[in-house]
Formats: sequence, structure tokens, C-alpha cells
Amino acid sequence: MSMEIDVIAFDADDTLWHNETLYADAQARYQELLAAYDGEHAVLDELYETEMANLPCFGYGIKSFALSMIETAIRLSGGEIPAGEIQGIINIAKEMKQAPVSLLEHVEDVIRALSGTHRLMLITKGDLLDQERKIAYSGLAPYFESVEVVTEKTADVYRALLARHRIAPERFVMVGNSLRSDVLPVVSLGARAVHIPYHITWAHETVSVHPDEAQRYLELEHIGLLPELVGRLERRGGDPHIE
Amino acid sequence: MSMEIDVIAFDADDTLWHNETLYADAQARYQELLAAYDGEHAVLDELYETEMANLPCFGYGIKSFALSMIETAIRLSGGEIPAGEIQGIINIAKEMKQAPVSLLEHVEDVIRALSGTHRLMLITKGDLLDQERKIAYSGLAPYFESVEVVTEKTADVYRALLARHRIAPERFVMVGNSLRSDVLPVVSLGARAVHIPYHITWAHETVSVHPDEAQRYLELEHIGLLPELVGRLERRGGDPHIE
Repeated sequence: MSMEIDVIAFDADDTLWHNETLYADAQARYQELLAAYDGEHAVLDELYETEMANLPCFGYGIKSFALSMIETAIRLSGGEIPAGEIQGIINIAKEMKQAPVSLLEHVEDVIRALSGTHRLMLITKGDLLDQERKIAYSGLAPYFESVEVVTEKTADVYRALLARHRIAPERFVMVGNSLRSDVLPVVSLGARAVHIPYHITWAHETVSVHPDEAQRYLELEHIGLLPELVGRLERRGGDPHIE
Repeated sequence: MSMEIDVIAFDADDTLWHNETLYADAQARYQELLAAYDGEHAVLDELYETEMANLPCFGYGIKSFALSMIETAIRLSGGEIPAGEIQGIINIAKEMKQAPVSLLEHVEDVIRALSGTHRLMLITKGDLLDQERKIAYSGLAPYFESVEVVTEKTADVYRALLARHRIAPERFVMVGNSLRSDVLPVVSLGARAVHIPYHITWAHETVSVHPDEAQRYLELEHIGLLPELVGRLERRGGDPHIE
């Protein structure tokens, strides 16, 4: 019995286009800026701590990252950091906001090809304006039937999205780089997920996977392999691990 | 011939709950904080200028407001503002983020009553996390069939929303406090709009109205008058200005 797939949904950041590299570059510049205050504490560890503390209040995205960079700089410098350097941090954020969208390899071909055979969705979390800008600049918007920007990717959020779009979980496949956000909540609903790791994972997105869960999703090295996998799923169905 | 209304949509900030007062309070505290640097320039005028310059990059919402407050403080102080005062600005933003949601008078009764007779929608712009928090805290979520958070409220955005929800413009009514965002783009599509002014309007939302446009929307003093107006529209239809 073959699996029928109605909708293939994609994460955006680090699945379709580069994102963590942007943060990694920003962090490197930030570390340089704060080198003078990097005493007993590691700047990036302190920054991560501030980001986690601010997450419930400020959420994800570049503006939130900027405010956390500023707070960390004030704290680490004991309030001694000059205002001009704080402006430097804001400038880093502005450059991030305006950075060109750089697609991962194979993405354009794969999305174009799959849009000819399947309904495609984009499900991404983060700042609405930022995500809309990237979607527009990516040139991929026409291939997606719908775009959903959410604040968190939990099982409840996916359940509500599937219900609203009238998609049966067993006919839905989610593709993304984050086990925590794109894979585990999706397989918990009985839907299928494809994990395509990016070469950097934000600490917040790391998660440990129970062996039972690892049986329930597929992993690909890069998105170029996705069309073949989709074809295989639809021909064979059942347990994707069975060759 | 009476007008049939399928969907009544509401703006959120300053239509259902207080929002500009939160910004006004924050601005007052900010002005105090910067009193020492308030030379030849008026702090709030400078802040508004920064906000407008940052709008394309940072969008709406409290985080964007915070970053503009910080930039303005650095500029007005000639880079002399101490880091501790910048932390004070971030703290203002955090308090805004966590401020309780305070409904306008009549809102709860009106929304409950109209939800019994019509499909209700919420269409709001701004930060996604912030809007979701306020919707959740308002207690009004169950009355709305759908909630749409957008980055701008233009005619194109409304057109796409109506198409996606399969709503005919002539059976759609939008209710809000902003002529610029809630009223003019909506009447330009041939839909109906009800303007309910709030006692403060952010300069960015002010707009001049052509006399022709003024004929095409209704104005109410407060939301408590809305159910009667809806009844009147459905009984009489046509030009709502004709008694």
C-alpha cells in the first residue's frame, strides 16, 4: 500500500535559505566588539543566557537578538560600554535585517519540481516582517500554496494548521532542519517528517531523541535528495525505513 | 434592499483594547529619562523621526520601538548616555510587553453579542508574538472565527485576505480606529468600514480624507453603538448615511 501525500510543508530558515550563518557572523562581530569586557565569562555563553531569559518576552528574530546583545553588553561591561558601541550592535542588527537571502543548494530546482506534483506549504517561525521579506526575496513564493508564520512550532500549532487547511496528518510531510521544531512535533501527530540537518544548529533547537522517535522520521543529507524520497514514499508507503 | 453581512472584522489595538496609552506612558518615561539631553531638539519629535526611518527595517511593535528609543537616546546625547540608562529603556520595553490587556468599554458585551449572529474576524498588524499574547489574555479569542496578524494593512493585503477566506467585499465590514489602516483600504475594495476613533492617534496613522472617501464609511463614537448599526445596515442596506 503506497502512501499518498497531499501536502509537503517546508521550514524556511536553514532549510530553504541560510540563516544560522548570519547569526554566526553577527556573533563573531559582537565578540570582537566586546573583546575588552570578556573577562571570566564567555561572551557567547552570556548572550545565549540572555536570549533564553528574554525569549518569553521578546520571542525569536533579529530585533530580539539585538536587544539581548545590548543587554548582555551592558551587563558584561558593568555598565561601562560606551553608547557608540551600543549603536554598533544596532547596526549589526540592521545589516542582518537587510542581508540578501541566500538559497541553499538544490532548493530552487527541488521546490519548482515538487510544486508541479504536490501542494506545497511554508511553515516558519519568527518575526513576521522578517520572514515576509525573506520569502519575497527568495523568489520561491509562487510555488507555495500557503505560507504560515507562527511564534512557536509545537504539536498544538501543527494540529491547528492541519485542521484549518483540512489536511489529514497521514497525508502530510514536513521538511526541516530542526528536530525540535520541524520533526518531533509533527511525527507526534502521526504525520511524516524529513529531517535535513544544517551544518550549524542553534543551541536552543538541539534536543535529544528517544530511539522510538528516531524510527518515525527520515533523514536526508541535503534537500536535493527529497524528490526521490517523495517518489519512494508514494510508491511504497508504510515504514520508510524498509527498503 | 438590505445589506447582508457575512463577516465583521475588527482591528485590535485601540479598537478592542488600549494600546496607544501604553506607548504614551512609555514616551513620558522616556522623555524624563532623556530630560538632561533635551537641548534644541524635542525628544519625542526626534524619536518619531527615528521610528519612521527604522520602519522599513524593523517594522511595528514594541521591540522596534525599543530599538528606536535607544538609537534616539544615543544620537541626542551625542553618544554620552550611560549604558545604565539604555538598560532603563530596555526595561520600559519589557514592562510594555508584559502590560495587562485592558479592554475598551463595551467591547466584551459587543463581541459576545455579535459572535452569536455573525462570523467575526480579527485583523491586526504588528509583532506576532505580542499580538498573540494580547489576544490570549483578552479572553476574546473564542469569539473569533479567525485571527490574522499582518505586517501592513493595505488594500492588497485586505484583498488577499478576503480571497483566501472567500468573503465577498460587499458582505464584509471592517471596524477599527485607524482611517489609514482599517478604513480607507477597505472601502477602496467596495467593502464597508466603521471608524471608531480612539482618543490618541499615532502620528503615523493620521491621514487626510478626501470628501468622496468620507461618504463611504461610517463613524461611531464608541463600540457600544456597533450592534445597533449592524442591525440598521442589515435592515436598510444601501447608503448607510440615509436614515
